[in-house]
Amino acid sequence: MHRIEVDAEIDLFEVNKRLAAENREFLKKNGVTAINIMGATGSGKTLLIEKTADTLSDGVRMGAILGDVVGKADYERVARHGVKAEAINTGKECHLDAHLIHHAIEKFDDVDLLFMENVGNLICPVDFDLGEDYRVVIVSVTEGDDVVEKHPEIFRLADVIIINKVALADAVEADVDKMISDARRLNARAKVIKMDLKNNTGFDEWIEWLQEVIGGMC
Amino acid sequence: MHRIEVDAEIDLFEVNKRLAAENREFLKKNGVTAINIMGATGSGKTLLIEKTADTLSDGVRMGAILGDVVGKADYERVARHGVKAEAINTGKECHLDAHLIHHAIEKFDDVDLLFMENVGNLICPVDFDLGEDYRVVIVSVTEGDDVVEKHPEIFRLADVIIINKVALADAVEADVDKMISDARRLNARAKVIKMDLKNNTGFDEWIEWLQEVIGGMC
Repeated sequence: MHRIEVDAEIDLFEVNKRLAAENREFLKKNGVTAINIMGATGSGKTLLIEKTADTLSDGVRMGAILGDVVGKADYERVARHGVKAEAINTGKECHLDAHLIHHAIEKFDDVDLLFMENVGNLICPVDFDLGEDYRVVIVSVTEGDDVVEKHPEIFRLADVIIINKVALADAVEADVDKMISDARRLNARAKVIKMDLKNNTGFDEWIEWLQEVIGGMC
Repeated sequence: MHRIEVDAEIDLFEVNKRLAAENREFLKKNGVTAINIMGATGSGKTLLIEKTADTLSDGVRMGAILGDVVGKADYERVARHGVKAEAINTGKECHLDAHLIHHAIEKFDDVDLLFMENVGNLICPVDFDLGEDYRVVIVSVTEGDDVVEKHPEIFRLADVIIINKVALADAVEADVDKMISDARRLNARAKVIKMDLKNNTGFDEWIEWLQEVIGGMC
């Protein structure tokens, strides 16, 4: 049984890799910058997309693919901001994959910036390239200040690491500096942003980074 | 490829089922009450075990198996309270399974109460029976008040549902009543406890439930 399992896994990752490359080619051809946003449920992924939509100038056409095991709540939140959006329900799967994205991206050939909000957890999304240009991981201080060191892989592969809800750090006795130094130790090249989305702390820094990667179109 | 994948999954679940039955038999034979604790990283799983260890009388011999993708931080926290403990690192896997537990339980033949702290997320642990007697799901209001409705399966199968960190509900604008009614709608037979572990809200109710299930040994 173990042998069959391993073969299936290899096939799965090979197929994912091939489809991710096709997604990347499609996005590049259409001038779309794609960002895979990962983080636990409640870390602030959807709010980050909503606030970004309200902040970017009309000159930037934005889209969002929202992954959840069930439901369309995140999709409805984002669509309310005038963003072209699509919900993907993964059922029992704890991550998006390149195959799911493959079917969804066709309608996003006319956007400049496409967010792919992954399913809420810090483990499963790691191994599945979606064809994105950048990976963003967002964690909240309420997840505990050991959350970064407990999930090294996802932070190692991130381009941007956001430590969110820093205004609540005292209330939950979380050491934000420890979280930042854990992030830097795991990944020296990532941009690390201290954020509190509810009161806009660090949000400008995020928008500046976005402006850079989509070529100053904001 | 899809066919092979499905076959492997069936094998995996069949094997898990068989090993879970063996675990259950071993635990029953030795008079061990086993509780599978599930919840996201930072929801309060480890603190619940720590505080329970400090509260139960010396007459209750307690053990804990702590699952994490990497590291021994939770194991160290629990062991400090004089609890017989064992860490399981799952690597890339996002859940404990009956096979991992099978190897770990041998040393727990002399305890009355055994906690199995699952890997931190609300998706993957659902399908893997460990051989436990009861399932407890703990969520924090900081995960957002839509966290229950977003993960119906794990709440449907729970015996106890704990809504933790209720003292922070206003700070994170979470509607605790909505979370409780979502939990009750999904699972009418589960015990739902409103809790704030840091200030002991709801903790007595938890200990009372524990006393019942381990036969008033506390």
